[in-house]
Amino acid sequence: MDYSKLDGLVPAVIQDAESSEVLMVGFMNEQALAHTQRTGYATFFSRTRQKLWMKGESSGNKLEVVEILVDCDEDTLLVKVKRLGDGNVCHTGERSCFYRVLNHDKDTKEPKDTKAQSTNDDSNLGVDQTLNGRTRS
Amino acid sequence: MDYSKLDGLVPAVIQDAESSEVLMVGFMNEQALAHTQRTGYATFFSRTRQKLWMKGESSGNKLEVVEILVDCDEDTLLVKVKRLGDGNVCHTGERSCFYRVLNHDKDTKEPKDTKAQSTNDDSNLGVDQTLNGRTRS
Repeated sequence: MDYSKLDGLVPAVIQDAESSEVLMVGFMNEQALAHTQRTGYATFFSRTRQKLWMKGESSGNKLEVVEILVDCDEDTLLVKVKRLGDGNVCHTGERSCFYRVLNHDKDTKEPKDTKAQSTNDDSNLGVDQTLNGRTRS
Repeated sequence: MDYSKLDGLVPAVIQDAESSEVLMVGFMNEQALAHTQRTGYATFFSRTRQKLWMKGESSGNKLEVVEILVDCDEDTLLVKVKRLGDGNVCHTGERSCFYRVLNHDKDTKEPKDTKAQSTNDDSNLGVDQTLNGRTRS
């Protein structure tokens, strides 16, 4: 695995092995992945708490690993799981964390001033320039 | 959307709207998401090239957006798509980037010394301590 792109972490997509629903996305470091493999239950690295957490360790809603796949450039994991406990993965009580459709209007506001955004604009995309009638200067 | 956790980016899981296969994971900043919504084709922010890229802009294998979902804490997107062109999403020619099962032995080696790893160890997980017969000091 290549942990270099996100400061020691890789995204781990959690997918229901039976229904193929995407349930959540967490982050793993090498220890979280090793823990997941050793125990057979999905374990993540909490970015907010800065420590490992086994999903469902308290609630009983653990995620039993069925299969772990790795992507082409080895910087992302796809973990197929069986939902244990009441089967609701999201802390809101929903089965999946992805229970809302994105509001188009709400999320096309002006970008905040962050590194990734300030070093980039639409001028990198020729196609979009044409669509918007703008020209390169 | 909350772009603060990954320096202006959020992971975007790309899922085939028909088969429910997870095809790839990319990253979007606000501009990439706005471009995706405006054009109807998945557009990412390339971390290596530090610019926007519309998937399939050159190859024709664009990803037509069917629906965009957002997770509970608004820091991850799930983009359901229709595969265009030859339908092969991965640059290797595979349909999905997740075409390999993770090799267990290969990926349980000792962690590298990175920020996320060095600030954490298994002692944060009570369950694992018990399993390994270790005690807190």
